[in-house]
Amino acid sequence: MELNLPEIRSRSIRCIVKLGGAAITHKNELEKIHDENLEIVACQLRQAMIEGSVTSKVIGMDWSKRSGSSEISCDVDDLGDQESTEFSKFVVVHGAGSFGHFQASKSGVHKGGLEKPIVKAGFVATRISVTNLNLEIVRALAREGIPTIGMSPFSCGWLTSNRDVASADLSTVAKTIDSGFVPVLHGDALLDNILGCTILSGDVIIRHLADHLKPEYVVFLTDVLGVYDRPPIEPDAVLLKEIAVGEDGSWKVVNPVLENTDKKVDYSVAAHDTTGGMETKISEAAMIAKLGIDVYIVKAATTHSQRALSGDLRDYVPEDWLGTIIRFSK
Amino acid sequence: MELNLPEIRSRSIRCIVKLGGAAITHKNELEKIHDENLEIVACQLRQAMIEGSVTSKVIGMDWSKRSGSSEISCDVDDLGDQESTEFSKFVVVHGAGSFGHFQASKSGVHKGGLEKPIVKAGFVATRISVTNLNLEIVRALAREGIPTIGMSPFSCGWLTSNRDVASADLSTVAKTIDSGFVPVLHGDALLDNILGCTILSGDVIIRHLADHLKPEYVVFLTDVLGVYDRPPIEPDAVLLKEIAVGEDGSWKVVNPVLENTDKKVDYSVAAHDTTGGMETKISEAAMIAKLGIDVYIVKAATTHSQRALSGDLRDYVPEDWLGTIIRFSK
Repeated sequence: MELNLPEIRSRSIRCIVKLGGAAITHKNELEKIHDENLEIVACQLRQAMIEGSVTSKVIGMDWSKRSGSSEISCDVDDLGDQESTEFSKFVVVHGAGSFGHFQASKSGVHKGGLEKPIVKAGFVATRISVTNLNLEIVRALAREGIPTIGMSPFSCGWLTSNRDVASADLSTVAKTIDSGFVPVLHGDALLDNILGCTILSGDVIIRHLADHLKPEYVVFLTDVLGVYDRPPIEPDAVLLKEIAVGEDGSWKVVNPVLENTDKKVDYSVAAHDTTGGMETKISEAAMIAKLGIDVYIVKAATTHSQRALSGDLRDYVPEDWLGTIIRFSK
Repeated sequence: MELNLPEIRSRSIRCIVKLGGAAITHKNELEKIHDENLEIVACQLRQAMIEGSVTSKVIGMDWSKRSGSSEISCDVDDLGDQESTEFSKFVVVHGAGSFGHFQASKSGVHKGGLEKPIVKAGFVATRISVTNLNLEIVRALAREGIPTIGMSPFSCGWLTSNRDVASADLSTVAKTIDSGFVPVLHGDALLDNILGCTILSGDVIIRHLADHLKPEYVVFLTDVLGVYDRPPIEPDAVLLKEIAVGEDGSWKVVNPVLENTDKKVDYSVAAHDTTGGMETKISEAAMIAKLGIDVYIVKAATTHSQRALSGDLRDYVPEDWLGTIIRFSK
């Protein structure tokens, strides 16, 4: 993989956060943001980022007109003597949820074939939908005073080769972080050397960023409490609280202690979330954990997500914390 | 200037088009798009791009919900056997108009100083506003069947050094064009090596793109007929129909033949548009013309802009064409 990474490892990124599509959109309603969740997520993110520094006034950074309003809300006249808030370095990546999915599946963008008019049109339509979501998330975080910068992987020069990341220039992401901003990336439609085009998921983007930015920890915010041993709507579903990842990338559930401990790896088949996307998530999370980076999969907009975002779980996991920790274990 | 340009000169870009902020937004109304103009501009662009190829059905490429609607408009089920439309290679750059301006001037982003909370907030707010406009323009062109891809200079890795472009990776722009898409860039807030941050105007972006992509011609769509010898609202204002640019970059009006022909260069001071931005435009246009690329400055959404976009003016300029041509002259 071609990379352009001037000294990124020294930058000390604290956390990469995935805002799961299911957590920040209404999955069953086309292009509808889950405003209540997103507002709480933004507030929790801000808290986590300024932890330890003096809590200062929120400086709203979305000075655009709100939908249906003709006025701009911008209360900056008293900012002259405001102290700069110190934010620790976070990167945000979000999924698509009910944005982009219709456009991509209708046209088959993920399967490639840009020479077909419907795929080309679907590529454009998918990017419009996901960049629209990106803008709304950037605005929501900016309203909470988080200095966010939307960055599409397509525009940043990410390319795939038969669906694998072939090149990903992270130098702009790194410069953005170093300048005190929070890059907000997203799952995107990309050009592919072999297929013409494809879709790169937010989970794969997270893994690549984690691999090269080496954050202290990674948090996946989702719409269920964590990873279960079967679809969480089933009555006997058990929340897997801790998964250990070995040097060879294999993983096993270490908490709770399950009966059939011999069939450890079978959980990779049994583990689900409501969207069926949990398997990819676990496998991507396991690859991140293998780098020595703790991964927390947790329900968005809860006290559990607040604890995960704060990083406190690295030292001590309270008994009442609900979520899944995926850790490297020698 | 650092550049990453694999063989771009062989790509045969037909035209770079500037959509002036004054032409596509209501300049005196905050964040308000000039929908009627934008629709005509999109239609004229499509006509110019498919000229010479068989006119096929418009395939709308914005399959997102329209504001106020809960339905997606996507009529793609009959696309299976649709022939691919051949588009000639265009690049679009737009200005900000009534987007971004309030945010930038309120905070002084153009003057730099990211360490100040108000500048940092203004940087975020400015980018939100201009990327919002970018999305709306991409959507308008996509509805007209133009396969547009929004690309922010910030995300593409453009950086300035004391307001001059210091690096601009055009490889992603080039790959996007080669894949049959139309990149849509825009004036943007950027990081600056010396100042911390600044604003890079669409006109400067056009010049850099022209310098490296070597299009056949460049069209500036604006809100007045062209360049005048004084503010066009003055009753005696004369439209300058042709300006010749010399090898040293100096320029003179060759049509109409003006009385005081000795004071040729003085027109650089006298020439204005309603926004006061015409001087930058002429000086950027003169630098493009010096490369041997014809530049047309013309009123958007008129028969004159249609003619300029088609490229026909390179061979013959009809007497009744109204606009300003800026050409290299040995």
